[in-house]
Amino acid sequence: MKVGIIGVGLIGGSLALSAREHIPDIEIYGSNRSQANLQKSLDLGLIDFRLEETMIKQMDIILLAIPVDIALERLVDLLDEVNDNALIMDFGSTKAAICQQVALHSKRGQFLATHPIAGTEYSGPAAALPDLFEDKTQILCETQKTRPDLLEWAQDWFKKIGMNLREMDPVEHDQHITYVSHLSHISSYMLGKTVMEKEKDQSAIFDMAGSGFSSTVRLAKSSPHMWVPIFKQNKENITETLSQYINNLNQFKQLLDANQFDKLHEQILEINNIRQILEGITNTKNNQ
Amino acid sequence: MKVGIIGVGLIGGSLALSAREHIPDIEIYGSNRSQANLQKSLDLGLIDFRLEETMIKQMDIILLAIPVDIALERLVDLLDEVNDNALIMDFGSTKAAICQQVALHSKRGQFLATHPIAGTEYSGPAAALPDLFEDKTQILCETQKTRPDLLEWAQDWFKKIGMNLREMDPVEHDQHITYVSHLSHISSYMLGKTVMEKEKDQSAIFDMAGSGFSSTVRLAKSSPHMWVPIFKQNKENITETLSQYINNLNQFKQLLDANQFDKLHEQILEINNIRQILEGITNTKNNQ
Repeated sequence: MKVGIIGVGLIGGSLALSAREHIPDIEIYGSNRSQANLQKSLDLGLIDFRLEETMIKQMDIILLAIPVDIALERLVDLLDEVNDNALIMDFGSTKAAICQQVALHSKRGQFLATHPIAGTEYSGPAAALPDLFEDKTQILCETQKTRPDLLEWAQDWFKKIGMNLREMDPVEHDQHITYVSHLSHISSYMLGKTVMEKEKDQSAIFDMAGSGFSSTVRLAKSSPHMWVPIFKQNKENITETLSQYINNLNQFKQLLDANQFDKLHEQILEINNIRQILEGITNTKNNQ
Repeated sequence: MKVGIIGVGLIGGSLALSAREHIPDIEIYGSNRSQANLQKSLDLGLIDFRLEETMIKQMDIILLAIPVDIALERLVDLLDEVNDNALIMDFGSTKAAICQQVALHSKRGQFLATHPIAGTEYSGPAAALPDLFEDKTQILCETQKTRPDLLEWAQDWFKKIGMNLREMDPVEHDQHITYVSHLSHISSYMLGKTVMEKEKDQSAIFDMAGSGFSSTVRLAKSSPHMWVPIFKQNKENITETLSQYINNLNQFKQLLDANQFDKLHEQILEINNIRQILEGITNTKNNQ
């Protein structure tokens, strides 16, 4: 089986590792915008061969793991080109635009839109991990529009990797994911910005930043190549969610200014319920 | 040597563990607002005896590990009461108010203001950890006002625990710590609030929240009993820092609204430098 990976970075590289472990007789072909990273993914053994444009027709599976704006541009051409039994999957963090893009394509049945809830703040092939997808949620959109035999193959592979499958409408996906991922990134970026602007005496940061700061600001290391296209594609949801976040911060500040400490206490007690939600996440994952 | 711990929670309990390991012939006395937690700290062997009010005079060392508002209230009475060779230390997250509170006290030399940059989002004696302070920064304020023999004893103990000592002016401490700790907590609380308000369909949160969300929102589990008094005491610094954070978020939203994606990209590239700062933190700690 020939698997072509377009974008051999954190996600594409980790997919390569998971594919090699679970798909027999596999040959992995890869392409990448950065030629240096492509060479690295060959050196690391993530891929076996370079994927040239002329080879697309020979691929059985194509995994699209590139920034969401470029994925949107390339998908239609790829669908046009692939052979009649190939499956193309994308792994981007937004799902509405890409599903809409190919809604009327004659080969719509050969596409599956997915979003693995997995990643780190690092990028590039060297960041790939063999167990990145283990015990993680894999969201599948519009499965009814994918050809049943191709869908079954994909579901089977994701289960073998150890993922928990969940189906979701692409528009709902983009709304939900704004709250639990996109907003986290923005709050983290802006936290990093605020601290870096203010703390000219950097050694004070070094000495005083503890694990709380590190974990809150971790996502601020994430690459803009991946994230700006996500913010662009999910702009409407993000604008709404961000307004709410800013409102809550303003409200907090007003309570502080007005010395309403009892109200702050009450509010935080309620927020502490996030503990159950987070434990729910862990438990759910452990139980599945 | 008799050590009295007022507040046997995460910090007090971990101090008890570190004291027992490094101070010979130690007897640990503890008191706690919650009697249930006091009993638990006896059951866990964190402390040996209950610390009654009448025993304060017998203590050689008193560790004050309670919310910063109560610490402020109790410190003067404690200083009045202790014997002439005892040392009292506090471990709160704000330092200006407590230093000011005892500035003119006749026994000022028997007090040392500290802030260990260590903790977790959990509280209570069961959250205590034997290695909580290992390789962490311990900030000491106004060391020149502490009696040299008592200061030396304290510094020696903290070094034995594995802490990296750093001296800092209390007013500067409160400014710096706002950026790398207090603001992180507020951004995390408000992130938790925003998500909980919006996501009525909780199962979507369960399935879609990944490690990025968990780490950004982790601090939202922190207790208001500890944090509201900190926000109150450090109100001025927090108000200023929070305004800056909100400005940055508004600016981000404006760039998004105006489709200025190149500017967003540029801004995030710059923020990515936080990577070096965070690596600096790790390296510094590993090297010391």
